[in-house]
Amino acid sequence: VGVRAAFDEQLDSLRGGLIVMAATATSAIRWASDSLLNLDLATASQALEAAGQLTDQRWVVEARASELVALQQPVATDMRLVVASLRVGADLERMGGLAAHVAKIMVRRHPAPAVPTPLTAVVAAMGTVAERLAWKVTRALELRDTRLGAELERDDDEMDALQRRLFALVLGNWPHGVAAAVDAALLGRFYERYADHVVNTGKHVTFLVAGGPGGPPAAE
Amino acid sequence: VGVRAAFDEQLDSLRGGLIVMAATATSAIRWASDSLLNLDLATASQALEAAGQLTDQRWVVEARASELVALQQPVATDMRLVVASLRVGADLERMGGLAAHVAKIMVRRHPAPAVPTPLTAVVAAMGTVAERLAWKVTRALELRDTRLGAELERDDDEMDALQRRLFALVLGNWPHGVAAAVDAALLGRFYERYADHVVNTGKHVTFLVAGGPGGPPAAE
Repeated sequence: VGVRAAFDEQLDSLRGGLIVMAATATSAIRWASDSLLNLDLATASQALEAAGQLTDQRWVVEARASELVALQQPVATDMRLVVASLRVGADLERMGGLAAHVAKIMVRRHPAPAVPTPLTAVVAAMGTVAERLAWKVTRALELRDTRLGAELERDDDEMDALQRRLFALVLGNWPHGVAAAVDAALLGRFYERYADHVVNTGKHVTFLVAGGPGGPPAAE
Repeated sequence: VGVRAAFDEQLDSLRGGLIVMAATATSAIRWASDSLLNLDLATASQALEAAGQLTDQRWVVEARASELVALQQPVATDMRLVVASLRVGADLERMGGLAAHVAKIMVRRHPAPAVPTPLTAVVAAMGTVAERLAWKVTRALELRDTRLGAELERDDDEMDALQRRLFALVLGNWPHGVAAAVDAALLGRFYERYADHVVNTGKHVTFLVAGGPGGPPAAE
């Protein structure tokens, strides 16, 4: 049916906007982690800029969604796809915000390192997991891969384990002072939240790329 | 027109769901703060339960929104009201999550106090501001008051000032150890994020209770 084709086409354009956002959110956390570990201000700026772009990109996605609804008058099932797109857009924007928080901690401590040496390995690992998570969502959106959910949960478990390790180090024998402990706790929290948003995104992305095969995504 | 009346009625029902959520989010942070300062486990459970209710309530709001769109086929302007409702629902649910985080810090330290004596005044003030913010949104939804925005910004500035005071205390002469410092930093972050979500909510609430007087809410 022509109406169906037009709806699918507009939904594809919405998905295109989300792919751009997911790629930007992936770069944002990579740049933030790199700046943190290499003490490089230029890379921190790139992370902050990417976060700003995500805000703009989210507005584009929302405008496309509103237009789609107004023009296509979707039925309830299709409307769930639109709502899923909006939620993915919101999560991806927030991931940019969290990457920016990581970069800002680096900037605030510069030229001193924000991450004391005993923590660099665990923080680097958190950065790697966060980037891998976001990259998987980007790829799933691009390739319309629906087998995403379980993989993300495993990565998220890894992130939670890393956060516990980080806290154990900070709360153990810690000679680096209270300020560094507070920064470390906040960094841990930002990476963990970033991963949570990816997992949220993943549920909706699976629903979205499947084209809505009955039933809403699982409750968060 | 009949169609318009039906749309307005369903939009009112959506707003009703948001009022319930806003009231629950207000209670959640009050209970969380009370449990934190009075070391009362029962009040902490109430906060955790309220957070769970907010998740359920958000699903109700989303179901009503999907139904509204499917039945009423709103034009783009009205669609923006539906999207605003979804965003308010998302923020209110997250406020419940943050209240739960506050309560969980209390539970984890119990029977020891999570907040050392020098911090109780500033943490109590953060709790008061958070509750007041959420209560204002609840009232604005109920009374359809559109003068909300500026007031919320002022309260949010107060929250930011309190958070800076909290961090200054923790990073100053701090004899309470690293664990208490980390808890304090996280508590500060949770209250600040709670307030941020209220401010986000406020923008959309103003748009929502005005019934959509042209133009989307201001960028976040």
